[in-house]
Amino acid sequence: MNSWGKYITLTTFGESHGPAIGGIIDGLPAGLEVDEDLLKELMRRRRPGGTQLGTARNEADRVELLSGIFERKTTGTPIGFIIRNTDVRSADYEKLRDVYRPGHADFTYEARYGVRDYRGGGRASARETACRVVAGAFAMMLLRTAGVTVSARIDQVGKERCQERFNEVIQAARAEMDSVGGFISCRIDNVPAGWGAPLGDKLQSRLAAAIMSIPAAKGWEYGMGFEGCTLRGSEVADEFYTEDGEVRTRTNYSGGIQGGISNGNSIEFRVAFKPVASIACVQRTVNTSGEECMVSITGRHDPCVLPRAVVVVEAVAAMMMADAMLEARLARV
Amino acid sequence: MNSWGKYITLTTFGESHGPAIGGIIDGLPAGLEVDEDLLKELMRRRRPGGTQLGTARNEADRVELLSGIFERKTTGTPIGFIIRNTDVRSADYEKLRDVYRPGHADFTYEARYGVRDYRGGGRASARETACRVVAGAFAMMLLRTAGVTVSARIDQVGKERCQERFNEVIQAARAEMDSVGGFISCRIDNVPAGWGAPLGDKLQSRLAAAIMSIPAAKGWEYGMGFEGCTLRGSEVADEFYTEDGEVRTRTNYSGGIQGGISNGNSIEFRVAFKPVASIACVQRTVNTSGEECMVSITGRHDPCVLPRAVVVVEAVAAMMMADAMLEARLARV
Amino acid sequence: MNSWGKYITLTTFGESHGPAIGGIIDGLPAGLEVDEDLLKELMRRRRPGGTQLGTARNEADRVELLSGIFERKTTGTPIGFIIRNTDVRSADYEKLRDVYRPGHADFTYEARYGVRDYRGGGRASARETACRVVAGAFAMMLLRTAGVTVSARIDQVGKERCQERFNEVIQAARAEMDSVGGFISCRIDNVPAGWGAPLGDKLQSRLAAAIMSIPAAKGWEYGMGFEGCTLRGSEVADEFYTEDGEVRTRTNYSGGIQGGISNGNSIEFRVAFKPVASIACVQRTVNTSGEECMVSITGRHDPCVLPRAVVVVEAVAAMMMADAMLEARLARV
Amino acid sequence: MNSWGKYITLTTFGESHGPAIGGIIDGLPAGLEVDEDLLKELMRRRRPGGTQLGTARNEADRVELLSGIFERKTTGTPIGFIIRNTDVRSADYEKLRDVYRPGHADFTYEARYGVRDYRGGGRASARETACRVVAGAFAMMLLRTAGVTVSARIDQVGKERCQERFNEVIQAARAEMDSVGGFISCRIDNVPAGWGAPLGDKLQSRLAAAIMSIPAAKGWEYGMGFEGCTLRGSEVADEFYTEDGEVRTRTNYSGGIQGGISNGNSIEFRVAFKPVASIACVQRTVNTSGEECMVSITGRHDPCVLPRAVVVVEAVAAMMMADAMLEARLARV
Repeated sequence: MNSWGKYITLTTFGESHGPAIGGIIDGLPAGLEVDEDLLKELMRRRRPGGTQLGTARNEADRVELLSGIFERKTTGTPIGFIIRNTDVRSADYEKLRDVYRPGHADFTYEARYGVRDYRGGGRASARETACRVVAGAFAMMLLRTAGVTVSARIDQVGKERCQERFNEVIQAARAEMDSVGGFISCRIDNVPAGWGAPLGDKLQSRLAAAIMSIPAAKGWEYGMGFEGCTLRGSEVADEFYTEDGEVRTRTNYSGGIQGGISNGNSIEFRVAFKPVASIACVQRTVNTSGEECMVSITGRHDPCVLPRAVVVVEAVAAMMMADAMLEARLARV
Repeated sequence: MNSWGKYITLTTFGESHGPAIGGIIDGLPAGLEVDEDLLKELMRRRRPGGTQLGTARNEADRVELLSGIFERKTTGTPIGFIIRNTDVRSADYEKLRDVYRPGHADFTYEARYGVRDYRGGGRASARETACRVVAGAFAMMLLRTAGVTVSARIDQVGKERCQERFNEVIQAARAEMDSVGGFISCRIDNVPAGWGAPLGDKLQSRLAAAIMSIPAAKGWEYGMGFEGCTLRGSEVADEFYTEDGEVRTRTNYSGGIQGGISNGNSIEFRVAFKPVASIACVQRTVNTSGEECMVSITGRHDPCVLPRAVVVVEAVAAMMMADAMLEARLARV
Repeated sequence: MNSWGKYITLTTFGESHGPAIGGIIDGLPAGLEVDEDLLKELMRRRRPGGTQLGTARNEADRVELLSGIFERKTTGTPIGFIIRNTDVRSADYEKLRDVYRPGHADFTYEARYGVRDYRGGGRASARETACRVVAGAFAMMLLRTAGVTVSARIDQVGKERCQERFNEVIQAARAEMDSVGGFISCRIDNVPAGWGAPLGDKLQSRLAAAIMSIPAAKGWEYGMGFEGCTLRGSEVADEFYTEDGEVRTRTNYSGGIQGGISNGNSIEFRVAFKPVASIACVQRTVNTSGEECMVSITGRHDPCVLPRAVVVVEAVAAMMMADAMLEARLARV
Repeated sequence: MNSWGKYITLTTFGESHGPAIGGIIDGLPAGLEVDEDLLKELMRRRRPGGTQLGTARNEADRVELLSGIFERKTTGTPIGFIIRNTDVRSADYEKLRDVYRPGHADFTYEARYGVRDYRGGGRASARETACRVVAGAFAMMLLRTAGVTVSARIDQVGKERCQERFNEVIQAARAEMDSVGGFISCRIDNVPAGWGAPLGDKLQSRLAAAIMSIPAAKGWEYGMGFEGCTLRGSEVADEFYTEDGEVRTRTNYSGGIQGGISNGNSIEFRVAFKPVASIACVQRTVNTSGEECMVSITGRHDPCVLPRAVVVVEAVAAMMMADAMLEARLARV
């Protein structure tokens, strides 16, 4: 349940306020050069406290790689890693012990398991995405050997579409003790035609599933997306042509995928992230005894997940693409 | 690759113009009463030729159930089934043998496999969804024992949101030898709190993956969706309250899922379907030798997938929910 | 539950006395030439009624291949197939409706599922192995492209080790309304070093699991096996040497596998099959009401599974090796 | 590849001479009381240096539980754990850098991955079984709630079957710089009828696969095993009777499993372990350049794996049974 991927799998563990989070990356081919700088750079981009836009929690987020690497190359055996939780203030959460925070997983975890680690959101905390960034870094190292790159960016914050004003919109939400959502778009370049699979393992299914498992994601679309679906077929047909002997499409309404398989064009998708539910203004809720009460969430939280989610989207997409890259080796005799 | 589900799995096979399509449903609990009328009714709703809106292909779509049922109840062993392809006119496709149809999977299948069954779209044909409707019928029989219902409807056709005019919009597209897309929304009622799982197996991940594997789906959103993500956190907070001893939310921006797990409210999601790529007007494309050419797709095709996709969306969602229903039995000691 | 394999999967369905049994082979690479003669020959070897040693049931066992093949080659899409049950005499089983046959799965299926198809052993019938022979045939076609061959033979019948007397021993058991067990050994030749995987997916684990799922198998050993384990380390060390630039072992106590991975030597294993439980002499048992009663099993049964099990062992081993063959493509960057 | 189990999964990582080994246990139900004493006791039984029979390597083997436990109960989220490697003498292995040890996985790992961590056997080291003992401890905690117990014991050392002389036989092998193998038998008591599954997931398949993945295991048999298969059907029929309203068998040739499903009797199986390949006497082998050379393995090694393997067999069997225990919840509507 805590895993992603089929050929290269990531399994993660860890609660936000436990001793450590971590994971195991299994199935990575042997002989891959490990680029620790890339890993550090991605971790830095996701790190809380890294920007004035983010949470005040300051985690060093040092990744301890425990196995699967020998003389700076992967050995084909699983890569185990842990990240210690160092800046934990569980006391902040003591008062939330018996309260279900609106928009959070407190109630649903308890409904499912009959128990929950209430400190810092426990397992449901976005802190877990650090582990996916680790796996994403290794996925990118592999993709790089095929020339494939993944890059995401914020498309919209609230109703604002102008990049220069994103910061303002986020600061305004923070000032009003509120939060704000938006969209991230991602493109994957240089994917050769033929990655992916039909039916149950369509590339879009795997990307959608993995991306929708990022906390706060509420929607996923690719290529023409929702808006393009309001058009006529003649308006969104990706006509084929040839260029240097390669079959290409002139337009990319398909988003680089047809029938679940890459067509050689860039893969393009977009994700909607909700405004975070941890807001300081007072909200009505119920406690674990079923009594109605009021709550104001005063921990250290981002007013907007987007700035830190960009690298998580890239990492998660890279994991799925690296998986598809290996799978493509199995398609023909 | 041709499978869905974890506890109850469906694996399908079959090309559009082969002798038969079919599948195996594995993991269905024993003792479930088989409602053949429900199965027939769902198949009728998906059937080509069933309405004046759809393709002219007329398949009886008789489902032969070959195993796993004894004295009208499931036995716990796998249910194998086949549906013969009866109204096959492969000659229609002979001229497409060497041409990649724009917006279709012809090129990508060939890029991946080096070979393809060009007749009727082969494995990429939407005909395969008939198998998912069969599995969906059994999933609904199981869900019914828990009172859970799944119902979808067309929300928008092209830019039209008024139900009464959907037919007109589709006929207009057909008249102009064009096609039209749109949105389907789906709600799942009476799901108890606690179905689903964290992280890799979040309910939204599983629903998104399965729905995005339906041909022509280009986007998926749940709860507040893309539009809600442009709002402030204070505007979309689902405050908890209690009703008859049950914890409920007043609003449903969460779409019935929090942290990957159902919260007791209705699960609500929306899917965008593209206008079908099989259009009669002439398009530019390339052939398998890489030469540019023209193509006009004159087979029997729907101008709009939405009318027949409604029941497919329901079936696919039911499969995922039945899976989650079983999984919920494993959560506690 | 009804599946085998990880990269090439077989999922089967079907009860002994239902309309048909069948399966889906998924993951077979595209472009493999389909050798229908091989398939027929393997089916003939497994077929009941094929020899005077076997059951009197006479099934044509005609395999209908329904998909995944185009112009005599695999297309990469799943191969669905069915085998109709034609010579079914369910009346033979009517009297067994309420009786648990000793040594059979009647009681355990009912304990698990609360229901069972009592006709002909239902799903637990060895008839299901026909589906594995179909998959094994395709596996062999793939293995052949790498020069790998699989061959099994009867090693021992009862206490008899002399090939020439096996027939006599079986006929003697039949004459006495009894049955007899024995051993089958299997060798897989020309496997290159490097197939298999460490830990959870060791080659011996996968072979043992698949072979132990054949009805009546009671034990599995490879290389030195049980007997070799009574020796000293110095007696069973496989010393390495080189031959034509290849690393080889002089002896093969390892059975061709070290650390879960093939070492280039022949893979050799042995399976123990119990004497079939369907014997005509009167046995004590209980019925479904828990009352003690007597039973004599008078259907058409083999006095010994070994003659027909040889090809099943080959097929099942071939499936696992074909799986490992594909997996080996993923090991290195 | 480094995983076991379907409903409760264990994934492990770690090389013998890396900083740590560890794993993730996923799928364990919430609310299970964690018995750390049991965990410590099992670890102590497996620990090197624990007895005069074992290797001189002395690892504290302290298990750090990093997640999934809150207030001494499981929370339903994954349990991550690590065990630091403390007493590592990699220098012992420096001279083995370029040599393939006979009977070891050195050559096959390199054949597969093109690279290997030669220190201490790397990933192929039996040290990895410590992680399975951790998972086995949790499995036993769960099984205990159903009254199920797992107990293994040494049956035979070399050719010796008398318990009192096992120690002598092992010491004699050590004195002669040799090693010795033998058999371990295991019984699982109080398993209710109905655990397990037909076909691909038969209980015997899962037990055999998991047990055969323990280093040095060369054979697996259950119930009547190899020897019973030389008998007549009438000699090994497990006749049913009833006792206190429960269906039972008078004898247990079936080994507690029929058709892949438990029958309520004790599950009994036996494993053959080879004499360890690390022996001090000089052996011929080849090096990584393909040149023939001599090797004498002078690290710290057990002359016999059996004493420490007993608890590993119990742990691995417990994992599979706990998996089957959860699965049984899914069998009926």
